[in-house]
This record gives sequence, structure tokens and C-alpha cells, in this order.
Amino acid sequence: MIVILHKSSTDTDKHALALFFQENNLAYKYIDATKTFVVPKFQQEDKIKVFKGIEKIIPIDTPYQLASKLYKTNTVVEVNSSKIGDNNFTMIAGPCSVENEDQIFQVAEFLHNKGIKNIRGGAYKPRTSPYSFRGLEKTGLQLLHKAAKAYNLNVVTEVLDTSLIDEVAAYADIIQVGSRNMHNFYMLNELGKINKPIILKRGFQAKVVEWLLAAEYIMSGGNEKIILCERGIRSFDPSSRNILDINVIPLIKELSHLPIIVDPSHATGIAKYVTPASLAAIAIGADGLLIELHPTPAKALSDGDQALSFEEFDELLKQTQTILSAINKKSDLETFTFKLSR
Amino acid sequence: MIVILHKSSTDTDKHALALFFQENNLAYKYIDATKTFVVPKFQQEDKIKVFKGIEKIIPIDTPYQLASKLYKTNTVVEVNSSKIGDNNFTMIAGPCSVENEDQIFQVAEFLHNKGIKNIRGGAYKPRTSPYSFRGLEKTGLQLLHKAAKAYNLNVVTEVLDTSLIDEVAAYADIIQVGSRNMHNFYMLNELGKINKPIILKRGFQAKVVEWLLAAEYIMSGGNEKIILCERGIRSFDPSSRNILDINVIPLIKELSHLPIIVDPSHATGIAKYVTPASLAAIAIGADGLLIELHPTPAKALSDGDQALSFEEFDELLKQTQTILSAINKKSDLETFTFKLSR
Amino acid sequence: MIVILHKSSTDTDKHALALFFQENNLAYKYIDATKTFVVPKFQQEDKIKVFKGIEKIIPIDTPYQLASKLYKTNTVVEVNSSKIGDNNFTMIAGPCSVENEDQIFQVAEFLHNKGIKNIRGGAYKPRTSPYSFRGLEKTGLQLLHKAAKAYNLNVVTEVLDTSLIDEVAAYADIIQVGSRNMHNFYMLNELGKINKPIILKRGFQAKVVEWLLAAEYIMSGGNEKIILCERGIRSFDPSSRNILDINVIPLIKELSHLPIIVDPSHATGIAKYVTPASLAAIAIGADGLLIELHPTPAKALSDGDQALSFEEFDELLKQTQTILSAINKKSDLETFTFKLSR
Amino acid sequence: MIVILHKSSTDTDKHALALFFQENNLAYKYIDATKTFVVPKFQQEDKIKVFKGIEKIIPIDTPYQLASKLYKTNTVVEVNSSKIGDNNFTMIAGPCSVENEDQIFQVAEFLHNKGIKNIRGGAYKPRTSPYSFRGLEKTGLQLLHKAAKAYNLNVVTEVLDTSLIDEVAAYADIIQVGSRNMHNFYMLNELGKINKPIILKRGFQAKVVEWLLAAEYIMSGGNEKIILCERGIRSFDPSSRNILDINVIPLIKELSHLPIIVDPSHATGIAKYVTPASLAAIAIGADGLLIELHPTPAKALSDGDQALSFEEFDELLKQTQTILSAINKKSDLETFTFKLSR
Repeated sequence: MIVILHKSSTDTDKHALALFFQENNLAYKYIDATKTFVVPKFQQEDKIKVFKGIEKIIPIDTPYQLASKLYKTNTVVEVNSSKIGDNNFTMIAGPCSVENEDQIFQVAEFLHNKGIKNIRGGAYKPRTSPYSFRGLEKTGLQLLHKAAKAYNLNVVTEVLDTSLIDEVAAYADIIQVGSRNMHNFYMLNELGKINKPIILKRGFQAKVVEWLLAAEYIMSGGNEKIILCERGIRSFDPSSRNILDINVIPLIKELSHLPIIVDPSHATGIAKYVTPASLAAIAIGADGLLIELHPTPAKALSDGDQALSFEEFDELLKQTQTILSAINKKSDLETFTFKLSR
Repeated sequence: MIVILHKSSTDTDKHALALFFQENNLAYKYIDATKTFVVPKFQQEDKIKVFKGIEKIIPIDTPYQLASKLYKTNTVVEVNSSKIGDNNFTMIAGPCSVENEDQIFQVAEFLHNKGIKNIRGGAYKPRTSPYSFRGLEKTGLQLLHKAAKAYNLNVVTEVLDTSLIDEVAAYADIIQVGSRNMHNFYMLNELGKINKPIILKRGFQAKVVEWLLAAEYIMSGGNEKIILCERGIRSFDPSSRNILDINVIPLIKELSHLPIIVDPSHATGIAKYVTPASLAAIAIGADGLLIELHPTPAKALSDGDQALSFEEFDELLKQTQTILSAINKKSDLETFTFKLSR
Repeated sequence: MIVILHKSSTDTDKHALALFFQENNLAYKYIDATKTFVVPKFQQEDKIKVFKGIEKIIPIDTPYQLASKLYKTNTVVEVNSSKIGDNNFTMIAGPCSVENEDQIFQVAEFLHNKGIKNIRGGAYKPRTSPYSFRGLEKTGLQLLHKAAKAYNLNVVTEVLDTSLIDEVAAYADIIQVGSRNMHNFYMLNELGKINKPIILKRGFQAKVVEWLLAAEYIMSGGNEKIILCERGIRSFDPSSRNILDINVIPLIKELSHLPIIVDPSHATGIAKYVTPASLAAIAIGADGLLIELHPTPAKALSDGDQALSFEEFDELLKQTQTILSAINKKSDLETFTFKLSR
Repeated sequence: MIVILHKSSTDTDKHALALFFQENNLAYKYIDATKTFVVPKFQQEDKIKVFKGIEKIIPIDTPYQLASKLYKTNTVVEVNSSKIGDNNFTMIAGPCSVENEDQIFQVAEFLHNKGIKNIRGGAYKPRTSPYSFRGLEKTGLQLLHKAAKAYNLNVVTEVLDTSLIDEVAAYADIIQVGSRNMHNFYMLNELGKINKPIILKRGFQAKVVEWLLAAEYIMSGGNEKIILCERGIRSFDPSSRNILDINVIPLIKELSHLPIIVDPSHATGIAKYVTPASLAAIAIGADGLLIELHPTPAKALSDGDQALSFEEFDELLKQTQTILSAINKKSDLETFTFKLSR
């Protein structure tokens, strides 16, 4: 159950409710910013509505509460001029790793010319082997930020560890939580305390309810700007790197108010499948795409197999636009369309 | 390796090759209808081209040979006026189970009015529990056939056991092999000996290579009219009945010449997700859809949760048509489109 | 619910109950041999106990009924002098495929000398590729039977298809249903009609409830002599051929009265892991082992990687006996122990 | 390849090698404490043996190097008087969460009386829901440490986040990395810099090679005291919380020199299956067990379903001892055995 207090409610009102929950041995959390109590395993509305200072009571019987569709209809995350969610379509693209100034400026210029508003790039990279390239770290963040701002783009980059949140937040407009960190509850908790949008990737082995509870960790800290991102799940079949769980998109749209985008680069693992998977994602209703893009994929220091070249990305944009038009979806690619048709 | 002999080649030519394979201890199979040797673990073209009577040698290094894209560019399965494969889009729809004459005639008339050419219906049903409804069996086949022919539709129905092949073949235009029978090698072998198109559903935990080898079983018996059907795989997440492995479609198109359709009814398990999943399937390039449809889903004797009503199917057709037009795909729904726009 | 009628109950008693179930729209099955009604989705004992001729009413709320522990405490399957189940330990061993008379007689003599009472051997083999060796078929059955009877052993062999049941039953003392056929409901149904013990392997992707329902198919046909066999499940990790789900043994013992044995050869896929896995299986309470054994594994026509040599099998027996003694389990290896210590 | 330099080797020797690797564009890492180069994708021994100062060259063709059996035969981790690895058997037990002083002292006294040398207890708990009890945090660590030292036990507790490493290391004798943190590469890296033994739990959907690479992260930082812990993997079957991948034990023993213990509490999720699973683990060769134990499981604040009571743990010890004796394994339970037999 979610209990939202009036803005004009008093501390006495709050304490009365808190006392009731304590006396009834109920786990609860109070979120100061929104004057909201969350009481996950409690449904009895009539016992609560007698209290003073209450604006709204929302009984919810799922383990997640703030992430539930019953709490909100639709979340639209605004980042500068980019809107993510509702009926907008948002493109985020860039290299797996920031490698050097030239590479990241090339990408930024290219994206700018296409009318795209968000650049992604890895500075701290999660790598399965300790001997793989782990990114340029702080230097990478700085280069990414410099290139992005030169071309008026939002910076999207991953935070790899709780100890890096402040550093990453200083350079990023949107912070990404990687698949392997979706279960990193301590970090999720800390991300609830900052005021930056979070792209929360699904753990490659996470059930939907676990994913929404990961979002709940962040939201229950006070940060409600979450963008979910499906990036493929692990299966028994080695013929694909991952399985794109495409149907999770309508499922999430039914269960939650949060926007959901798709990362077809990780979901497929191979560049030639990125465009088909993108079209499927758009057709089924995804709110955006997160695409790996590299000026010269064959020379990429990480994940080159799944990165699109500029030419391939161009083709992706054309086909994407076709499906978006067919389903009448607004898009920040409108600008791009115009430029394309010159 | 596939070795195709000239039509004019002699028995002596054939025996010389067979002898070579035997002496070299190579597993091989000779298919009489096409005068073709298949020798799966052999690649040495130069050792073969010295033999007489050879039209073509195709070295293939995958375990499947006849199912490989190297053997053929594209298979188009023609069934009466319906074409499956290449750039056609084919709709197959109907109830999980044939329940009675009234039900199946209602469905047949509805499909006919929509311009759809293929009706599916279950007569022998694979059910997890021995106490569940197992279909009307032979009576079901007869009712389905009667309704289909009354409205000039192709009959699509499942064969549950080797011992039923003759019976089913007598009534069906296209025979379906269910997910649980994809590994039923003995039955696949027998299906290679008949001259009917086969829809081969993917086992719900089958690797792609196993699926193509199942197709190979049928093809190596001489029946090359195979339509693959993705119907969802089993995963760790109970929030979906199955995971629609959408990316298997471009993967199959790269590996094989066989057409591939999608069954979004089983892949999602819930009626409200069937339409979104269908749109994704079309956008990514599926050659058709296999949809469960029932006049009154709430009263269906089996799988009612995933069956569309006539109204829901209408909406599916509209949205389907939108995506098909966007991607310029020919469709046997053109007729339907015309009727719709009246 | 299971309703068992008195032996002395009349047809009138039976018809009264059948009518009640029909009028209440309840799925049910009547088993003639045991005068038993099975009514899976019905629990109301008080509505039934008013009927005449009833010996016992057992309310059971799982989808499986006859396979439930509530129906029986313990099933012991007796085959000639071998007992499977309860506190006995049973060894079944032999080659993946019967290859020739010499091979199968060598194995039979070896097993006989070790005091083992059951020989397994494949005549019809389920193979993923149509080009692999598929067994000697009927000749294989005959050779296996001849060797077994020469050494007073029970014959254990797989039935691959419904159409082969009669042929296999003519030679086998125990019929095996392979992993890929666990979901072959039509065949399971037919196996319920014969009077031979069945080893029912778990589908490599089957949930426990599905496995018990497969047993229910056979039992509801009247054949209650089922031996479950865990043979490994498919997972995401290519480092093992299969995952031995060891904990399914105590789980099955809690849910069901049926004996459960383990096939460590398929569960591990590699000979060197067969003995450790066997010890784990015995320690956790398995009722027996099904082991692949070959005079010369390196020359086996199928599954040679996982077959034990005679020397390796000897070592397995010694270690097995150690654990069996530690846990005080009776064993048909007692004879063997004696012979070993000569 | 691993290249170990002589203790007497010079900086010049080191630099010559480093230069060679750089010029050949090879990823490598130099570990100062052991004067060791690790060069994972390089096998050419002859190109290296010409360099000066080399004690030993070990070509290894797996992605993990220091975790490989080729690097060492056997690692025995010594913690005060407890030895983990080789032919020792080690018991670690205690509550999921430290709840209060009384609870943890009861457990500590009980373990001490049984001759057990290691107590586990959670202070910072990873919980799927943000509304669940997350542990007593620093207070929990202090209580655990106090109780352990009062009874001369080693402290085993989990580190949840990089930022907590120093705090946890101040109280723990052995630091545990939970299943969800096995992929937390940044934290693993930091754990390589401290001098405490690490229990590294397998990610619940981690491949064996990923698990060994996680160990490699820690080892390549200079900390070689790793104890692997199998705790169950996620599968498609909801009838078990997890699948205990029992066969991973002989597999790890073949691939790696690291000791491996089993956590049957998480692997099964239900108290009544913990003892059978423990026996299987010992019989197959596990180096120890990690058991959840609570004075009153029904009142536990977390994971009560899988915790053993003192009586159940007593029974586990007896049965454990039976199997250990049968297989002639040394055990720190010898003390316990003596006490038991009083």
C-alpha cells in the first residue's frame, strides 16, 4: 500500500501513521521528498483512511509498490530537451568504450548531424576477464563529456561501483546501471539519493519481479527517474549470445509506469542482428533504443562484434523511421528524418 | 557435403560413390527422389569431383546439410493457392481444439470472410495431464476437414504419434509437428516419407542446431516441404509462460533456406500479448503467423487464455497490415485488406 | 481425489459415482483393474462418502494423483529376482547400443560375474542427427535378449515409438522411456495398457510436476510399475553436458511413492565424472543407478565418451559399496561384494 | 601463460619482459608480491625462455590462468587452526542474519561445543526487496565478532559493497562474496588487494569459466586465498528454489587448485533437504559445507525456511560423519566426533 500525505500534513499526522505501522509490525518506508509511506505487505485501506492528513491511499498487492502501474500512469523522464517515455521514441547511441578523443568526437559529430540527442560511452567497463581492457576511467568520462557538450548531447554512461557514483554523476546526464549490477542492492540504494535519471538494465538472469524491485530500491530512496532497459537474458542455446525477451515490453507496460528501452546490441551480440531486433522492439512498443556504434567496429577495444558502423547505423535509422511512422509514434528522430531527406 | 547426381547418371555412377564412402568409413545417406548423397562429416571436394555423373558438389561444414542455406537459397512451400516463404506473408489461424461442428464452421466462415486461406485446429491434443480434454480425435479431423473445404481453406493440424500419420495425412493439407515431438526422431523419419508440407515447431528447449537437425530428419527422407515455427522457449522467469525468441528469425534466415513462421499464442500464453508479439515477429521478418482463435475464448475446452476472439483478431489483422505495408511485404492478407476497407 | 471401490462393489455403485462426476462436470478416469476413480480437481470428501461400495477416499490436491505419496507409501517394482524401490539398491548397466553378439555377451558375462542382475542396451537409438548410427533395431533386441538370458539377467531397453511397443515388450523385462519421449503422451498412454515395468526418464527440460504427470499417464492406464530416472537437465552452462539435479531425489521421495534411480552417464556426459556422481546419488538416497558400460569405450558406436570400461566399473562398484555400507542400504550388490572379495 | 621470475631477478629482467609483451600487443598483468607475469592469450614458451631471470614458465590455454590447476596442484587456505582444502573437511555454520547478542552467542556456544571452528553470520544482507530486513550492519559485525572470539571461532561474513571492505575486513577472518556480487568486478579487484581469505560464491547463473575468472580477478590482485562455494543455480523448474549443481565439484577439482565448498541451504532453500544435499556434496568430494543454522528458525528475520535448528544440525553432523568416515576424509569434525560419542 502507498499512502501519500497532503503537502499541508503535519509531523503529528506522519508520526501517527508511523506508530500504527510499527505497532502492527509492518515493514514500511517513509519518503520525505514526496511525503509518502510505502507499506508493501498491507492492503487494509479502511484501517488507514481514518488517519488525518492523507491525500491518497493506493492499495497494491505486488512486492513492488512505487514501480507499479497503480502508483502512476506514465513516467516521462526529461533530460534537457530529450523526453523518454509515454509516446516518445528516444535513440541513445555511442561506443562500448571511450577510446580516445578523436573516436568520441567523431561519434558525437555524427550523432549530432543525425539529430540524435543522447550519446553513450563506457569509461569504466565491466569485463569478465581481469586481463581485458577496462576503459579509460576518469579520462574517459572527461572526454565523453567534452565531446557531448561540444555537440549539445546528453551524456549516458555506466556507474560500475558505489564508490564511483559521485565521479560519474559529475559528468553524466543519465547514469546507467549494468546488467551485472542490477542485483547490487547497496549501490541501487545509493542511487536513490541522487537527482539524476537512471537507466536500469535487466540482470541477464533476473525475473521481471526482481527487476521491478531493483527499480523500487532506487525509487524508495526518492529518485523516481528510472528508465528500464531490456538487454537480453541468458538461455540454454549457445547459438545466440543472449535471448532478447521482446515480450517483456508489453508486460512491463502493463505492470509499471516506467519507460522501457531496448539494447539490441547486447541482446543479440552480433551487428547484423541489431537492426532486425531494433525493428521488432519498436513494433512491440519500446520507448527507445540503446545502440553500440563505432567509427571502425573492427578496431574497437571492446565488443566490436556487436557495434554498428556509421553506414549500418544510417540504415538502422531509415528502417526505424519506417516502423515509427507506421505506428504513429513521435520521435526525436524527426529532426533526423528531415536531415535525411535533404 | 551434398553430392547431387545428374538426372542422366547411371546406377554404376551411384555405386562408385557409395563404395567410396563405405571404404572411407563415412556416414552417408542417398536420397532417391533427388539422386542426392548427403555425407555430413566430409568436406574434401577434390576427392569427389573425379567421379562420374556428378551435377553439383556442395561442401557444408554444419551437422545439418539439406537444411542449410548452402543447399538452397529459398524454399517456398506452396499449398493450393497459398505460398509460404520468400517474401510472402501467410496467416494460419483457428482454435486450439476442434470442439464441435458449429464452432469450427463459425471459425472457417470468419477466416474465409477475412481472406485467410489456412485454418488450424487440433483433433489429437498433447496435454500435460492425462485427465485433460484430449481432443475429438478422428471426429475432430473430419469436422475440421469438412469446415475447411466448405470455405476453400487449407487444413493445418497436428500429428501426435507415428501411428496416426496416415489418418492425419488423409485430412490435412499441412501437418504440424508439436514442440514436444520435435525430438521424436522416429516420427520425423516417417514424415520424410510422405508428400505433405510439415510445420515443424521448435522444441521449447531445443537449440537451433537441434531444430535444424529435426528438419534434416524429414528432408533426408525425401520431403523438403518444411516450414519452421518458433513458439517460445522455456526460461527461468515464471512471469511469462514462454519466451518468444524473436531473434531466431534472422538467425534461421541466415543459416537455412526454410521459411519460418511464429506462433505468438504459445510464445506468450496470454491473449493480450499476442498482437504486440505478432507485430514484432512481422517487423523482424517472419514469413507468417500461427494464431489461436476461438468464437468464445472464455468457453474454450483448451488453451482459452491465449486464444483471440473474432474482434481481437480483427484488430490484429489491422495492425499486422500496417507493419506489412511499412516493410513492403506481399501478403495473402491483400484480399483481406480489400474486404476490410469496404 | 482418488476413490477406490470395494472388490465386492457392483456396477450400479460404479455407475452412480460416474453419473455424479458427469453431472458435476468433473474430469475423471475409471481404472478397471483396480476399481479406482481418479478425479483430479475435486476435493470434497463429504460429497462422495455417501455413495455405496467405497473402500477408500483419498483427497489429493496436486495435478498428479496416482503418482502421489498420498496414494501409496512405497512402490517396490519386482522383476524376477530383482527388487527396485524401498530400501533396496539396484544396479542396471550395459552399453549405449548393442553393437554385435560378441560385445553384448562380453558385457552380460561381466555383469553376471559381478552379481548384477539387470543389463541395459539400446537397439533403437534416438539420435540428434539422422546420419548417426541408429542401432541394430530388431536384431539388437534379439542379441540383447539372447545374451541376457544366457546369464540370467533382466533385459532393460528403450522403446522409441508407439509402433514399436509390442516388439520391444516381447524382448524386454523392463521398458525404458527416454528423456525426449517423456512428453510423448500418446505413447505413455499406450504403455499404461501393458504389464511390464517402465523406467521413465525425466525430460531434460521437464519440471517435476510434468514428470509425475507423465508417470500418471501410464498409471492411469492401469500400469503402476514405474521407476523414475533422473538423467540430468539442460542449463545455461556449456561446461557440463547436463546438470545432475541431485536434489530431485529427496523431493521425489517426498512427493511420490515411486522408486527413483539415477543415470549419471547422461547426467554428466563424461566417464570420469560418472563415479563421483554415482556416489552423490547413493548418498542422497537414490534407489539405483543406470550406468553405460562398454568393453572398449573408445570404439563405441555411440556415446563412447560417457561409457565406463570394465576396470572403471569395478572401481565404481567398490566405491559404491563403501557408501551403501555407510548408510546401511540393502543392495543386490551383496552378491557382487562377495565375489569381489574372493 | 604464467611467467614466474626468480626471487633474485632484477628490475631489468622484469622490464625486458614487459617491453616484449607491450611490443607484441599482448594483454598482461604483473603481480609484484609473487614476481609473476600473467599473459592470458599467449602460448609460445620458446619466445619467452630466452629472457633472463625466469624461474618457471607455465603455458595455459584457458581464459583463467592463476585459478588453473596448471598453476598449482592444491591450495589449502589456513585460517587460524582451520584448514580448508586438500583432504580436509571444513564446517562453517551460523545464522543468515545476526539478529541480537543473545541469538549469536547461543549459536557460537553451540558450535564451539560441537568442535566446529567457523561461524558465519550476516550483518549487511542483500535483499531482493528494499522493504526487507537488511541486517544490523556495523552493530551486527561487532556482535558477531564478539561472540566468535568468546568461543574461539573464525568469523565468516559477507561484504556487500566495495565501500564496506575495510569495515568488514576489520571484523572478519574470512570474507564472503555473495552470489549476486560474483560479477561485481570492481569489488573483486579491490578484494585482491587485501590479505584475507575470500569465499567466492558462484553467481546463480554463472558459467564455470566466469566463476573461475571472478577468482582470477582477486588472484591477479595478489590475494590467492580463495575458497569457491557452489550455492545452487537458477533453472526453469519452480519446484526447487535452486538446482544444486553437484557435478561442478569434480569439475572444479579438475580445472582448478582452489578448494570448493557447498552451501546446501541456499542450493535447496528448504531445511529438510539440507542434510541429504550435504551428504551428496561430501560423497562427491566437497571440501566443506556452509550451513544456515538458527536457534529458532521459525522466528528468523531472514531465510528461516532454509535454516536448520540445533537438533537438525546435530543429525546433519552424525550423518556427515558417517560419509566422511566411509571415504576416509580428515575433518575438523574429529573433535566434534569425540564430543558426540561421549
